[in-house]
Amino acid sequence: MENIGYYNGKFDLIEKMTVPMNDRAMYFGDGVYDATYSVNRTIFALEDHLDRFYNSCRLLEIPTPMPREELKKTLYECVNKVDDPNQFVYWEATRGTGIRNHVFPDSPSNLLIYTRPCPMKDLSLRYKLATMEDKRFYYCNVKTLNLIPSVLASQRALEKGCDETVFHRGDLVTECAHSNVSIIKDGKFITHQLDCLVLPGITRKHLIEICHEKGIPVEERDYTLEELKNADEIIVSSSGALCMPACELDGEPVGGKAPEIIKTLQDAYLKRLHDECGE
Amino acid sequence: MENIGYYNGKFDLIEKMTVPMNDRAMYFGDGVYDATYSVNRTIFALEDHLDRFYNSCRLLEIPTPMPREELKKTLYECVNKVDDPNQFVYWEATRGTGIRNHVFPDSPSNLLIYTRPCPMKDLSLRYKLATMEDKRFYYCNVKTLNLIPSVLASQRALEKGCDETVFHRGDLVTECAHSNVSIIKDGKFITHQLDCLVLPGITRKHLIEICHEKGIPVEERDYTLEELKNADEIIVSSSGALCMPACELDGEPVGGKAPEIIKTLQDAYLKRLHDECGE
Repeated sequence: MENIGYYNGKFDLIEKMTVPMNDRAMYFGDGVYDATYSVNRTIFALEDHLDRFYNSCRLLEIPTPMPREELKKTLYECVNKVDDPNQFVYWEATRGTGIRNHVFPDSPSNLLIYTRPCPMKDLSLRYKLATMEDKRFYYCNVKTLNLIPSVLASQRALEKGCDETVFHRGDLVTECAHSNVSIIKDGKFITHQLDCLVLPGITRKHLIEICHEKGIPVEERDYTLEELKNADEIIVSSSGALCMPACELDGEPVGGKAPEIIKTLQDAYLKRLHDECGE
Repeated sequence: MENIGYYNGKFDLIEKMTVPMNDRAMYFGDGVYDATYSVNRTIFALEDHLDRFYNSCRLLEIPTPMPREELKKTLYECVNKVDDPNQFVYWEATRGTGIRNHVFPDSPSNLLIYTRPCPMKDLSLRYKLATMEDKRFYYCNVKTLNLIPSVLASQRALEKGCDETVFHRGDLVTECAHSNVSIIKDGKFITHQLDCLVLPGITRKHLIEICHEKGIPVEERDYTLEELKNADEIIVSSSGALCMPACELDGEPVGGKAPEIIKTLQDAYLKRLHDECGE
């Protein structure tokens, strides 16, 4: 198939799939998700993504829609039905189906999956970034479907000819609309600490591990917009953006002063990816 | 019919309705809504609710799914198909349908409606309230589908045997999980000012108008948890809860010291409702 959409055991082309109007995602955005690339039909870093997915379920008290091994099997069944071996794989759990009512329903959770062909980002590029006040909630450590602020920020970035938006709460940088953001300064890798203001990014975690391997000191702490502007490099990381350096922030040139560190991180990250998934 | 669900021109019983999996509500909660009672097949304060609905669309840049007069006609077509004349009428606009992508889609918005039998709240009751830190985003002036914090707060209230949760940001009271909250102190009506922390409630607006008519001074300002605890009365207001006084806050007795003001407000509010919708 060209792509595949899946919902509670039924599947078809994504654009042909339907779901109950009473799925709580329709009224409350009441669900969590995770997503990653499938490269040569191997879902990259799947264990990490499943760890986070089940943790998101736990944090929002959404019953897990399927045991872990069964979910892995189901994800691979979907991946194997799609013609192109390189895909973006997405899955979400919503808190069940029922007549609209804020309190938890007396119904099982729903499992939605889609996977579709998707080339990996070209890491020889550099992102243009815009900044925007972070007006999101204090559940940003959970990968939820409550994404209106990220939708608005992504649209603003597009309109400005940018690739991503960097959120800041006052002077402090948190993360991007759908990525983490870190900086390199004086040979150190600096990234926001894990708390309710940022998503525990899988790529962020891999980059920190790589820094440890390569002897690059890591600081997990608040950093300011001023530090962002004056960083030697700015790195946008996510399962989609991988490890993407930036060249512009609100129209001004940024980064580009430690390309050897960017290369070290990208090479090691891609090595992990290809070691797991093949070339 | 027993109830009715509507989506882009199609209708059926709510529980039989389906929507495209690619409706952006499913991935981002990317939509806005409004809701009110229909009493004797008259949708109460509909013009106020439509004003707010179109304003929510405008604030989130969601194209309006239908012109105002046509939407009114469609809502009434739904109301008139349901057997019971007293209903809860709900409608939402989502930012269209398309393969998942944060940026705005190149598609029209979707209109979802449901209406179902619903008796009005018994205003001789008093609510039990719980308090909870307000961890929501700074778009609370928009009636969005990003409602996970309200879902969690409503569930917590239920588990504590309470009817609603009062949110506070630090010491300052904002509103409830799905209502505004105001206090009566020394004959004054005190309620949070309209900003990005609270919804501009239609019932709140009516109550303020009634205060002006009845010579009750109104203060729209921040007030503290301490003021809430020591208030002569606490009033929870929404299109569903109407004008509901409270008797308990986190297990401690509250309010009950100005029942004559509660009666004045409730009587005047119900008069407005029955003047518009009949007895």
